[in-house]
Order: sequence, then C-alpha cells, then structure tokens
Amino acid sequence: MLKGNCIIAQSGGPTSVINNSLAGAIEAACHSETIGEIYGASHGILGILEEKLLDLRREDPAAIQGLRYTPGAALGSCRYQLKKEADYEKLLQLFNRHNIRYFFYIGGNDSMDTASKVDRLAREEGYELQVIGIPKTVDNDLPQTDHCPGYGSAAKYLATIVLEMGIDIRSIVTATKVAIVEAMGRNTGWLAAATALARRGEGDAPHLIYLPEVAFDVEAFLGDVEAVYCRYGTVLIVVSEGLVDKNGNYIFNDAAIKDVFGHQRLGGLGQYLLDQIESKLHIKGRFVLPATSQRSAMHLASRTDAEEAYHSGRVAVEEALRGASGQMVAIKRLEGEEYRCTYEMVDLDQVANQEKKVPRSWINAPGNDVAANFIKYARPLIQGEVNIPYHSGLPAYVNLAWYPAGKRD
Amino acid sequence: MLKGNCIIAQSGGPTSVINNSLAGAIEAACHSETIGEIYGASHGILGILEEKLLDLRREDPAAIQGLRYTPGAALGSCRYQLKKEADYEKLLQLFNRHNIRYFFYIGGNDSMDTASKVDRLAREEGYELQVIGIPKTVDNDLPQTDHCPGYGSAAKYLATIVLEMGIDIRSIVTATKVAIVEAMGRNTGWLAAATALARRGEGDAPHLIYLPEVAFDVEAFLGDVEAVYCRYGTVLIVVSEGLVDKNGNYIFNDAAIKDVFGHQRLGGLGQYLLDQIESKLHIKGRFVLPATSQRSAMHLASRTDAEEAYHSGRVAVEEALRGASGQMVAIKRLEGEEYRCTYEMVDLDQVANQEKKVPRSWINAPGNDVAANFIKYARPLIQGEVNIPYHSGLPAYVNLAWYPAGKRD
Repeated sequence: MLKGNCIIAQSGGPTSVINNSLAGAIEAACHSETIGEIYGASHGILGILEEKLLDLRREDPAAIQGLRYTPGAALGSCRYQLKKEADYEKLLQLFNRHNIRYFFYIGGNDSMDTASKVDRLAREEGYELQVIGIPKTVDNDLPQTDHCPGYGSAAKYLATIVLEMGIDIRSIVTATKVAIVEAMGRNTGWLAAATALARRGEGDAPHLIYLPEVAFDVEAFLGDVEAVYCRYGTVLIVVSEGLVDKNGNYIFNDAAIKDVFGHQRLGGLGQYLLDQIESKLHIKGRFVLPATSQRSAMHLASRTDAEEAYHSGRVAVEEALRGASGQMVAIKRLEGEEYRCTYEMVDLDQVANQEKKVPRSWINAPGNDVAANFIKYARPLIQGEVNIPYHSGLPAYVNLAWYPAGKRD
Repeated sequence: MLKGNCIIAQSGGPTSVINNSLAGAIEAACHSETIGEIYGASHGILGILEEKLLDLRREDPAAIQGLRYTPGAALGSCRYQLKKEADYEKLLQLFNRHNIRYFFYIGGNDSMDTASKVDRLAREEGYELQVIGIPKTVDNDLPQTDHCPGYGSAAKYLATIVLEMGIDIRSIVTATKVAIVEAMGRNTGWLAAATALARRGEGDAPHLIYLPEVAFDVEAFLGDVEAVYCRYGTVLIVVSEGLVDKNGNYIFNDAAIKDVFGHQRLGGLGQYLLDQIESKLHIKGRFVLPATSQRSAMHLASRTDAEEAYHSGRVAVEEALRGASGQMVAIKRLEGEEYRCTYEMVDLDQVANQEKKVPRSWINAPGNDVAANFIKYARPLIQGEVNIPYHSGLPAYVNLAWYPAGKRD
C-alpha cells in the first residue's frame, strides 16, 4: 500500500463508545509501518476544512487507553454536511498537502454519504486515497450492519433506568400512577424498543411501548393506558420521540403547541401525551426525558458494545491497509444459539442516507409493544459491563491533550 | 426491655437505598432476643390500618441481603398522612392485638410527624411502645441530621449524568448549544447543588446552578446564560424544579401555561426556561428531565450512602432496645479533615414538618452557583460504588416474597 498519513474524524451526535472506535483506529494505525502521521480532525469535517488537525501520535498512550471508557467525541464532532463542490475540492487539496492517504470517518448515515463522496471524488481526480467509514449511532438505524456501535450501550442504560423507575412507581401507592419515558429516535424505534429488555416477570415495566414504525393513534393509546391501569394500578409507557399518525405526520406537532406567551413549544411528545392522559383519563402522571444522557451514559455502557466499537475502529484501519476504500465496517451476526459476530466490509453507497427501521414482525400486532424476535435480537447487545475507574466518587474520564499538527502550504 | 413484636414500614417517595435501612433494621431485629415477630407493613401506614402485615422472618436471607442493592420500597410505600383521631386509635388497637412494642418508620418530614404522634398517643394511653424514625429522602431536607440517607446516591447519579452530558454537549459544534437539566427538589436545592461536584476544571459543566433558596429572576438568568455562552460556546444549566421569584411565587406557574387545547400544562420549569432562551437569546437548546430516575438509580448508588442507610436501620433497632422512643436516628459528622460520621438520636418533634434549606453562605453571591462550603460538605457523601450483581446485562434486583402475617382478633 501507499505510504502516507491518515486522518481520523468523528461526526454527528456522540455515543458512549464512539471513542472506543477512535482508540481502535489509533492503535491499529500505530501498529502499521505504512501509516506515517496519525491526525485527528478537530470537530469532524469542519476541522479538516479549517485545517485544524491534531497530532495523535503525541498523545499519552494512557489517554488513548482512557478513550475506552470516556463518552463524548474526544476529537470533537460537528453536524455539517459538505454541500458545495468547493468544500470537496478543499478537502482533497488539504489531503494532498498533508499527504493524507487514509481517511477514517466515524459517524452515521449522513457521514457515510460524505465519506462516499470523498472516495468518489478522489478516484475521479486520480488521487490515491483509502476512505473507510466506521459506524456510530445510538439510533441503530444504519442498514447493511446487524447493529451499530453505540446502540447497545444506550439500550442498556435506558433499559436499566426504566427497570429502576418501574420498581419505583410500582412500590408507592396513592401517588403518581403513570410515567411516560420519551426515548431518542426521531424516525426509528430501536431505543424505545430496547426498554422491553427490562422486564423480568408478569406486570413488570415497561407496560406499553410505541415506535415510529407503527402509525400512532391517540384514542387507541388512551384505551391501552386505561386497560393497563385497570389491571396493574400503575402504567409505565415508553414512546419514541418521533411518533407519527397514519398520514405520517408527527403526533406532537411543535407548531400547534404554544404557551400563553405565544412561543412555540419545542420537544416534549411525552408531556403532550401525559396531558392527554391527565385530562381524559384523570390519572396523575409524570414525564421523564432522559435526552442526551442516553448517548453519554458511559458509566453503564455495554461491554459487548464497547468492544465491538473498538474492533470496528481496528478493522477499518486493517482493511484500508489491505486496499479497501469506499466501504464501511459492518457487524455480521453469525448463525447459532450463542451470540457471535464478525466484521465485514459493505459499500458506503449502500449505507449512505438510508435508514433501517424496526421490522414490523418484531413489533406486536396492536403496535403497543415489541415481539419476541426483537428481544432475541437485542438481548446480546447489552451484555457485560465496562470497568470504569472512579476518582473522588465520579467516573475518571479522560481528555486528549489536542496537540496541534502544523499547517502546510 | 419489654418482649414483643415489631413493625417496620417505609413511607413516601422511595430512594435507591431505602431498602438498605430496611435490611439493617431486619438484621438487627433478628439478632435480638427481645423482639419476637418481625412484621413489615405493606405500603406503609396504609398496610397497618388495613392490617396487611408481612412476616419478614420467613423471607429468604438471600433476599434480605439483596435489599442492599435493590431500589424502590421493597415493602411498598404510600403517601398518606394520618389525620383523624380514629386513624391513630385504630393503629394503637392493631399494635395491641399483635403485641407490637417496636415501631420503625423509614421516611421523610411528614412521616416523622406521624411517628411522633403515634409515640405521644401511646404514652398518653399507657401503651408501652418504642417508636423510632429512620431518615430517608433524596431531597436532603430533614433538619437535625448532617444529611439524609438517600441523598448521596441521588447526588452521585445526577452529578455523573451531568458530567457525561457536559462532555457530550461540549464535544459537538453546530448543534444544540444549551441544555437545561431539571433536578428534583420542590423547596430545597440540595440535589441541583450536587451537580457542581461534576466539575473537574475550568469551563466544565454545569455552568449555572439555580436553587429555590435564592429568588429567581428570569432577566438576570438570561444575562447569565448569554455570558456563559459568549465565553464557552455551550451552556449546561441545572435548575431545581421549585424555583421561586422574589415574592415566593413559583417561576413556572402551572396555571398560566396551557396548550392550544386549553389543558393545563404540569411540570416542566426547564422547558419553560428553555423557551425563554430560544425566543429571547435565539440559542437552540435541549431540556433534560431525569425525574424519578434520580431516586431509583441504584446502579450508580454511593457506597457511603448505602452503608449509612443500612446502619441507620441497625441503629434504630439497637436504640429502641435500649429504651429510646419518640426519636429519629441522625447522622453526625465528626470534626477533622477526614470524613467520619457517627449516629445519634434526635427528638422526632425537632424534625417533624420542618425543612432544612441550603444555607445562603453555601451559595455564591449572584445566586447562580454553589460556594466552596457546599462542595466540602457534599463531596464525601458520593464516595464509593455499590457492587451490583448483573444478570443478562441488567442489574439483578430482588423482590421480597411478601408472606402475609395472620390477622388477629
């Protein structure tokens, strides 16, 4: 392979384990004699456009090790889609100046589109470059991979707090009877679905789960809530933030809800549904919005997920060194009762800008819970705990030093 | 001491460690030759009034051990205040029928009032009874004790997710710039204040903390947010749910906020403040409402807190056996650099219906952060982790079997 330097970048919303992929890529690059400098892009693609590169070889190996239990994007991340032709040209020029021959992009659907375009442009212009995508998203919505690094940890955390809040709400009478937990997932219900893992026996929370994959009907919902309430006395409901009606319109239409000052109310589907329950069923409830804690709760990450994220980073580098480009690392689940995975390469074009939804057959017929197939799929992904060092009562997360790499003319 | 039976009851909102106090009381009672039957009241004082007693001696010792890492109220809890004379009479009659000579009540301010009244009534009627309160509340608002079992664990969890969300929001540019985390604490700011423990260095989250102890002014708040935003580019704010203005009125006046359907909007001070930021400062933000996860997140409990909760239960029984009554177990912090505590007994009358607020001198002058005194106070309370067994990826919490005790005429 061509000797040259590499850039690693992180993109989009962070996950608990996105730094595991970074650590895997750095460590594999360090073991290669083909890769010279190992650069990090500060704040994703923006850092490349602005030539804000970090010299990752200078980082303390202990800090690189610390990435394996540190949430957030240690290189910084951004939400920025390359649109203009000029952006792509600028990128390639920078790659040329710094003799970048390997580009590793850790991100979701949009990022895989960017990576694909960079790969194509380099080929068109005859610039030798290996571009590899490393999957990352708590939403688990990337196609062509069994699941995405980041999902298992968010699922484990969310299922655990739902388990705990379920025990809480069940144990106290004459108070709040309903809790609505709003899970992340604008267009897919993978995270909300994962809370079903919290159940251990009859009557356990969550009692109802609603995903964007099934058209939501408020009247049917109220009927479901009332039925559970009559049976168990308390109801814990999990909803995906992006529920839609049969016409595909969001149930919680931001624009329709204003406060008395006339300000548009943003977010809060769960609060809206709770208002419906309180006003129509006259049952008192509580709204829970874990928000970004779902994607940053490294303190309760899945070891399976963290290890797969790390290996995805390693595999990306190893495959690039074998000549792969325009591809993403995907996780392939092997046949058999015991959960085992391997890694394979899939074309970025097959992943870019696409969304994998929860299959209808993994959701129960009335659309208010998951089916057994989903549980079988998701259970292995939350197995194992990550051993986090604590300092003075709190997780001892690390920072990288961010040594700037010199600019080049 | 008089030989007889005992009742243990749990009251009010559960905490992560309220079952530690239960385990401590059961184990100490088991070691006594004076105490005969060990009853649990199912769902607190309601279970006593309805003569729904549980025979705790029949429980598997492994389940009692399991209480030390299980959240929620394992006996069940309630929010019910004895009001009528008849309720108290009924209670004493049941105590008499079951030869109850020891009553242990694990709860907060209201519960200590109930315990105090039961104690007084028994004395007035010449019924020999030892009544001991065991403190419990995530709000940390009980007077006469350095701190309350339950607080340290809620503080540790909340500080950790704020630490993690702070890393998350800082690491991504061109997206959400503000996060508002609404902490529990209707009248006191102890929990919101604890998130200050998350900071490790300059610029770390949380950037602003507002407590009900200081009159809140929306204009000053917006000024604070803008200043932090200009300095760091992102702002993580923690507010207590019960912030009040200079006249003592809640900032978020439920009645004033209605949706377009005319329904009263309940809860959501954080959402209200976020609306203010978005509409007046034009900075995009996110609202986080951890709600009851704060009081049930046993998966990240403080070992210090769990052990103190356990010992509070033990001490309650031991002191009752030495003749104490009409008292609550309190935690006394000893002088010296190293954190050490002892237990002492305080009169229930001194605790009942009172609230301990965060001292003004523990809050900074502008009222938008805590002061160093608070950190010194709170840091020791979150130390240590509880070793939770996991099964199939989730905490293996236990249930008691709830063996009913026979009724008596």
